[in-house]
Amino acid sequence: MVIASRSLSYSRYTAHGMTAAAMEKEVVREVPVTVYVNRKELVTFLCTPRNLRYLALGFLYLEGIISGLDDVALLRVCDDEETIEVRLTHDVELPTRRVLTSGCGGGTTFADLTAQAGQIDSILKVTPSQILGLMRRLYQEAELYRTTGGVHTSAISDGEKLLAVASDVGRHNTLDKIQGQCLLGGIDTRERILLTTGRLSSEMLNKAAKMQVPILVSRTSPTDLAVELAKAWNITLIGYARGQQIHVYSGEERVEPG
Amino acid sequence: MVIASRSLSYSRYTAHGMTAAAMEKEVVREVPVTVYVNRKELVTFLCTPRNLRYLALGFLYLEGIISGLDDVALLRVCDDEETIEVRLTHDVELPTRRVLTSGCGGGTTFADLTAQAGQIDSILKVTPSQILGLMRRLYQEAELYRTTGGVHTSAISDGEKLLAVASDVGRHNTLDKIQGQCLLGGIDTRERILLTTGRLSSEMLNKAAKMQVPILVSRTSPTDLAVELAKAWNITLIGYARGQQIHVYSGEERVEPG
Repeated sequence: MVIASRSLSYSRYTAHGMTAAAMEKEVVREVPVTVYVNRKELVTFLCTPRNLRYLALGFLYLEGIISGLDDVALLRVCDDEETIEVRLTHDVELPTRRVLTSGCGGGTTFADLTAQAGQIDSILKVTPSQILGLMRRLYQEAELYRTTGGVHTSAISDGEKLLAVASDVGRHNTLDKIQGQCLLGGIDTRERILLTTGRLSSEMLNKAAKMQVPILVSRTSPTDLAVELAKAWNITLIGYARGQQIHVYSGEERVEPG
Repeated sequence: MVIASRSLSYSRYTAHGMTAAAMEKEVVREVPVTVYVNRKELVTFLCTPRNLRYLALGFLYLEGIISGLDDVALLRVCDDEETIEVRLTHDVELPTRRVLTSGCGGGTTFADLTAQAGQIDSILKVTPSQILGLMRRLYQEAELYRTTGGVHTSAISDGEKLLAVASDVGRHNTLDKIQGQCLLGGIDTRERILLTTGRLSSEMLNKAAKMQVPILVSRTSPTDLAVELAKAWNITLIGYARGQQIHVYSGEERVEPG
């Protein structure tokens, strides 16, 4: 039984004393889930236990461990939700390098980081009002965010509708889940717009580049490394997409004023 | 030269067209920094390049690789800020397990997680107004947050003043930096209050438990696993500490109404 949040009790104090004991609040669930590939332990996610199949598949794809569904002979989420077992159709050398924050399959210099993906060649265009409309739709879909306040939500769009939406306690997990859903649903991630409530760090850029998404949008801020990677990979990077405005940090040729 | 933010240009579009090109905004810096221990690569942080000595020392301590400054023969941040070299006074087996989000030194079940720290025995008491006052001081110190919007800030307090403050693009890095500063400054982390702008995941709890901090406060939400770990370790967990109220999720006996 997959439950993404649960009700916990707490006491509410004001600056001048307690006002209510044993209140109840929905809190986002975070569980350790370990992925085994060909019987070897690969990774433990601390994640929200919803769409774990998507999470595992998307992670394996974005880490370059699989190149598609054809590489997967079996994928089983165990009933306790603590283990995902994956069997591949071939042997594989599992990566052991450790990068914090993780998920960024290795690489320690800017040159190493940029070498992980190629330039994205796309003539997709968007308008500011289109982006702001898609972000509003993202919030409408983010029901787990509204009830718990503790998750990130991301979505992939064709410019008109949201094709896949994912929520998780971990920002990066949302992109893995979207990639996994796209693989299983036969949805191409190229020529799409990726939208997220979370900050844009280098790792978010790294995953977007591997998805070959030309336009990445956040309601909040990028880091300097994220902007540099966006420029190197020719990704249109949009931040602070909220209210009536957007900030465009790179790839402005894909944004049409109106 | 350590610079925690830099100015980047962007264009601002409104829903109805562009309003300003080539605006300038301070953006938080994020750089890959690799730590070598006894000439072996241990980990690559994606972090804000300020107080990298604190970050490396605190991480090594909280991961159990060192038990104090006496274990460290040399710690050198290279001039390019891309490498930190650590030599220990003894050989050490470096961990290779990979947990996402990382930093949580291993463990895949709740039992494994709880076994990583013991119960915290402390009779420290706080009042809600004291907590809210310390959080206000935290925001005053968070100048990088005010200029860039993209970082987390944490602090350790004796209940009256902030003893150490750290900002970083990564939430977990802020606690590593605080631990490192406390080690170098001879500041005991026990019987203290740990304050953070960031969400409380299991990894934040794990670091707080290893610091033996009895009271952990956030301006935002905990996950369910964070609350369970707080109860198992007898840590007072306070969320949503903002405005005129706090939510107490565990260890209420340390909170005095007024």
